[in-house]
Amino acid sequence: MTETILGTEPMQTYTLQNDLLLKALRGEAVERPPVWMMRQAGRYLPEYIALRNKYDFFTRVQTPELVTEITLQPIDIVGTDAAILFSDILVVPQAMGLEVQLNEGIGPVLPEPIKHIDDLKRIHVPDVNDSLHYVMDAITLTNKTLAGRVPLIGFAGAPFTILCYMVEGKGSKTFDKAKAFCYQQPEAAKQLLQMITDTTIAYVQAQVQAGVHVIQIFDSWSGLLSKDDFETWAMPYMLQIQASVQASCPVILYPKGSWYSLETLANNGTKAIGVDWCITPEFARAQTNSKVTLQGNLDPAKLLLPIPQLQQEVHNMISRFGVNNYIANLGHGITPNIPVDHAKAFVDAVKNYVQ
Amino acid sequence: MTETILGTEPMQTYTLQNDLLLKALRGEAVERPPVWMMRQAGRYLPEYIALRNKYDFFTRVQTPELVTEITLQPIDIVGTDAAILFSDILVVPQAMGLEVQLNEGIGPVLPEPIKHIDDLKRIHVPDVNDSLHYVMDAITLTNKTLAGRVPLIGFAGAPFTILCYMVEGKGSKTFDKAKAFCYQQPEAAKQLLQMITDTTIAYVQAQVQAGVHVIQIFDSWSGLLSKDDFETWAMPYMLQIQASVQASCPVILYPKGSWYSLETLANNGTKAIGVDWCITPEFARAQTNSKVTLQGNLDPAKLLLPIPQLQQEVHNMISRFGVNNYIANLGHGITPNIPVDHAKAFVDAVKNYVQ
Repeated sequence: MTETILGTEPMQTYTLQNDLLLKALRGEAVERPPVWMMRQAGRYLPEYIALRNKYDFFTRVQTPELVTEITLQPIDIVGTDAAILFSDILVVPQAMGLEVQLNEGIGPVLPEPIKHIDDLKRIHVPDVNDSLHYVMDAITLTNKTLAGRVPLIGFAGAPFTILCYMVEGKGSKTFDKAKAFCYQQPEAAKQLLQMITDTTIAYVQAQVQAGVHVIQIFDSWSGLLSKDDFETWAMPYMLQIQASVQASCPVILYPKGSWYSLETLANNGTKAIGVDWCITPEFARAQTNSKVTLQGNLDPAKLLLPIPQLQQEVHNMISRFGVNNYIANLGHGITPNIPVDHAKAFVDAVKNYVQ
Repeated sequence: MTETILGTEPMQTYTLQNDLLLKALRGEAVERPPVWMMRQAGRYLPEYIALRNKYDFFTRVQTPELVTEITLQPIDIVGTDAAILFSDILVVPQAMGLEVQLNEGIGPVLPEPIKHIDDLKRIHVPDVNDSLHYVMDAITLTNKTLAGRVPLIGFAGAPFTILCYMVEGKGSKTFDKAKAFCYQQPEAAKQLLQMITDTTIAYVQAQVQAGVHVIQIFDSWSGLLSKDDFETWAMPYMLQIQASVQASCPVILYPKGSWYSLETLANNGTKAIGVDWCITPEFARAQTNSKVTLQGNLDPAKLLLPIPQLQQEVHNMISRFGVNNYIANLGHGITPNIPVDHAKAFVDAVKNYVQ
């Protein structure tokens, strides 16, 4: 497969040397599934910690050379079949005009959250090629440096999850304020969701234009909603984003915790869904009727198992999902406490899978 | 129905004036479902806050007069069909010999958590009639004061949830350390779970002996487990507790987030299951085949809806679950931000239900 990389440099063409992920997303037969890990460019890697100790969060995210270095670390160190751009879902509310503070160990803080419809005047749908140009620059440089070794995944937060942070103003177990905003001020919530959606559509289209091979949409908090509320406050906006980009780039939706959504998403044009470990492979396949590619779903805490047991878990997981229409991954992001050799053992166990 | 209340006072007999909850648990036909709210004796009530400002947590929990006053507050103020004893699931690890600190607004802290099998030497299965006698005294006094107005629900944490706190040492979104303990030190985890189970069996039996009419087992964190892990680390211990007391008292299991467990629990003798709002009534009924009484499941954030909409939500919820074999409740505990008149509107909407 030949990929054209657009950027500030003269146009260059690379041959993608590992297209397992794209084959799985197209439903083509493979000998073994592709593997990557959510948060694979993250705090379990000493090489990442070294950069984190030198540069603050927004410096890391906004400097294409640092994004490239961090994005490539897991490719070099643990050998995943895809890179995922190092960034954060909260660059979108920041680009929309809301202050976002990301302090290590504290979690995100948005000191002036949205509380009322009048607060929407404080934000806007930005020109992403202006306010988020650094992401597109980072994509160009990362692809150039990857030189076709593996595909590059771009991503964005789903609108409901972005609303959660914009209204709550910080992380939360339950996002009570964000949900109350939806239930008590539905018109304001829908306006806000549509502004986030419009921004995110432009953002993921720009990422595709810059050269990402796959887009993943993270709805990290959709599992806080009932099925009816998911279909009101989360799904319609995710589907708008999916529809806006699916013709030019495969899209993976990851509605964490929304086990009840699989059948409905599959019936609404979704081609790939990330599932967490509470969803059994059998349930996920039955709900999606083999129409979609499934991604997941090892409990990240299982990476701490002794390696022979970890290998057995991976083997069972692949056998239960099946080799085709499947992307091996964790069910959520890898946590900082995972030894690198265990992360590598997870990746190797997928690579060494024999039916 | 005539109930005999055992205690230090001469034995007294009260007629239970409201036995809707017990009828629902026995599967008897009712005109409308019973209603109570998880955490109904809690921080949304100004009368509770007033006592919290005067007495620290363990004083409130360990003083029968205060337990009685707090337990009765929602009966008097919002008019629920059942009282639930004011207490905390962490009195069990405390009785087992582990220090538990409960500071307002911080959440629980267990400064010397269990990390290794050797740490089990620091804890023991206590004589609950000694170390937890204050709970049984509170049950006696509460029942005497209630004088049969409504039944009294006793409760305990499920062993997996108690292990989460004993190992993690504090609250957590993911309880990574607790899960790692299970996966990496399975023999130690099973010994710990059995010690918690043995303590909890004695504890709930003592509560029944003291006069509670119903026992609810809270597995607040079981939803962090995959179905396989739920059936390894959570379910067997919950079922032991259920089996130990079910002949003398109805038991409600509340495995929060474990939507995948309904069918298995129903097939293992469970007669009543609390469900959260992510589970639709139709899914819950289909999984349990009308063999069990279901309890739940309004999203607590929905209590913030304008009252006419809240009434409509309650009506829909009851219509979807059906009037019989059903206990109206929230899907999780009521949160501090709920106005009392909205809590009362929820209760009244159930009481006023007409098919």
